[in-house]
Amino acid sequence: MAVTCATSRARAGVWREASARRRERKVGRVHCVAKQVERVDFVPYDASDASWTSGSFDEERRTFAQRFRLRSYEVDGERMASIITLANMLQEVATNHVLGLWGKGKDGFPVPPEMVERNLGWVMARMKFQLDRYPTWGDLIEVRTWFCAAGKLAARRDWDLVDIVTGERIGGCTSMWVCLDMAKRRMSRIPPGVRQEFEKSSPVDEVFALGQGVIPLKLPDFDDEPEFIGPTVVARRTDIDMNGHVNNVAYIGWALEALPLSESEQFNLKEVEIEFKNEALQGERVVTMASPSPCAVPAHPNDGKDYTSHCYLHSLSREADGEELVLLRSHWCPK
Amino acid sequence: MAVTCATSRARAGVWREASARRRERKVGRVHCVAKQVERVDFVPYDASDASWTSGSFDEERRTFAQRFRLRSYEVDGERMASIITLANMLQEVATNHVLGLWGKGKDGFPVPPEMVERNLGWVMARMKFQLDRYPTWGDLIEVRTWFCAAGKLAARRDWDLVDIVTGERIGGCTSMWVCLDMAKRRMSRIPPGVRQEFEKSSPVDEVFALGQGVIPLKLPDFDDEPEFIGPTVVARRTDIDMNGHVNNVAYIGWALEALPLSESEQFNLKEVEIEFKNEALQGERVVTMASPSPCAVPAHPNDGKDYTSHCYLHSLSREADGEELVLLRSHWCPK
Repeated sequence: MAVTCATSRARAGVWREASARRRERKVGRVHCVAKQVERVDFVPYDASDASWTSGSFDEERRTFAQRFRLRSYEVDGERMASIITLANMLQEVATNHVLGLWGKGKDGFPVPPEMVERNLGWVMARMKFQLDRYPTWGDLIEVRTWFCAAGKLAARRDWDLVDIVTGERIGGCTSMWVCLDMAKRRMSRIPPGVRQEFEKSSPVDEVFALGQGVIPLKLPDFDDEPEFIGPTVVARRTDIDMNGHVNNVAYIGWALEALPLSESEQFNLKEVEIEFKNEALQGERVVTMASPSPCAVPAHPNDGKDYTSHCYLHSLSREADGEELVLLRSHWCPK
Repeated sequence: MAVTCATSRARAGVWREASARRRERKVGRVHCVAKQVERVDFVPYDASDASWTSGSFDEERRTFAQRFRLRSYEVDGERMASIITLANMLQEVATNHVLGLWGKGKDGFPVPPEMVERNLGWVMARMKFQLDRYPTWGDLIEVRTWFCAAGKLAARRDWDLVDIVTGERIGGCTSMWVCLDMAKRRMSRIPPGVRQEFEKSSPVDEVFALGQGVIPLKLPDFDDEPEFIGPTVVARRTDIDMNGHVNNVAYIGWALEALPLSESEQFNLKEVEIEFKNEALQGERVVTMASPSPCAVPAHPNDGKDYTSHCYLHSLSREADGEELVLLRSHWCPK
């Protein structure tokens, strides 16, 4: 079969062609047929329904949840989900949530129509992601998300992660988003109509994934000489997301590259706090640095170990002009 | 909520805690409850069944298929699946296929028991992956796979990719694997008992995903001065797979980094052929090079364009000792 640039909807699958060839030959012995008898993961799909999303709303349509079975390529050498995998899941659930509420806008993005008209968009400013336990290969995880307005310029989105089989909560995340005028690239008020829509789609009482009142806060400046400088990162094709920008999640991976291997060999990442400041473009070279930092939220397992030495402040900056792109704080606990 | 290193199965989810708080307060108005009423993607799961896998066998247990809905973070700036996403899906289906046949061995990997006893494993040597159309965000794809012995030392595994909604076949892949003595790191004969098991689990007649007799062939040496040298790649934490090695799929992304951006902006990758020679370890620096190459499988859409200039030979080599890790040939067609 030659490579062809033309596609054809009528073209039959090779597997079916082969099956047909065998049938034509009328070979008497039993042969393999492609009929499905044991499928367990069929996903109903209505191709005519453009608002279809994976996942589902609660009955009040104020939260949205989706389940994920951890795939073989989503885990690391210890068969544990990477933080990248889990952060991608958060993003997927958030996207399907708003897709379920507003469908795809004219530019293909799910935002309230009033925001599309005013050329406004949402940009994540800060995030705080805590993991009590990393799920492993094959685990079935439910990620639930909800959002609410946070003042007149911002919104908060939180997530809760639960192991479906054990019922155990394994982590949570909170994030702050600002409403941005996409042309002027500056903050804008949330339009009143959108705030009203938010009220219908947000939990009636405030719900915080990481404890009452916990939101992601501003991180300290990265002032001192870095203790660790990682290999310079180049934004790869595979780091680019559906908006054509570097995926927010990619910055987490880049920031962690600054630390020596021994850190992730002996410790689990329990929390990351992120402040997004500027964005990198594909092909740009990014410097990744880290230094030990006092822990904002120290862990006290009372085992006599010094956990404060395993909190780091990370900075990612564009090599060309030194512009800081992302500040991140990571908190590690012994395995 | 403080970060804690201790996990507790009994710990209730924050969402449920908040719901309970609201219930205790006996607030009369309607509030959000977490009850599921619209779930559409529930995956049945029997936690007591360790051999459970996603996907399903055909009724003869000679092929295995799994469906994937393309997630928001699995597509690029044009909302198309990346080749990385699709190659990961191939790997996931292959893993679940053998997991369905043999379960997890004592080291957690699904290989026939006779191979575990003899400390033998399978290593992918070559692969040829063709895509007629890239699926887009939200598409539902079925990936079917099957394998058979290929002589006494090797096995062939093929895959077929179909868009479930349109029924259109969108691509296929073929790969050759060698049976390796894991201690001596050299090729070994497939044990006779394993060959017998293969006969029960392979299609009765030979089936080739890319056309009758098409298997991945040896690539030409990368001899000349490279026309393109990409930014040096450093194997990231996120490039490591569940075996603790660099994921085979990561090499594809690295190889493509050698080409200028204009190539992927104006052309779609229609085929990659890969020859795996050595493996990189986390933290190692890898040089990625490419040069135009005569097309082994030229495309002839009869539109007068010169497609031969859009076939490249790529080489990945370890910076420290110059050892070649991977040879790859990429074939591009105008968008």
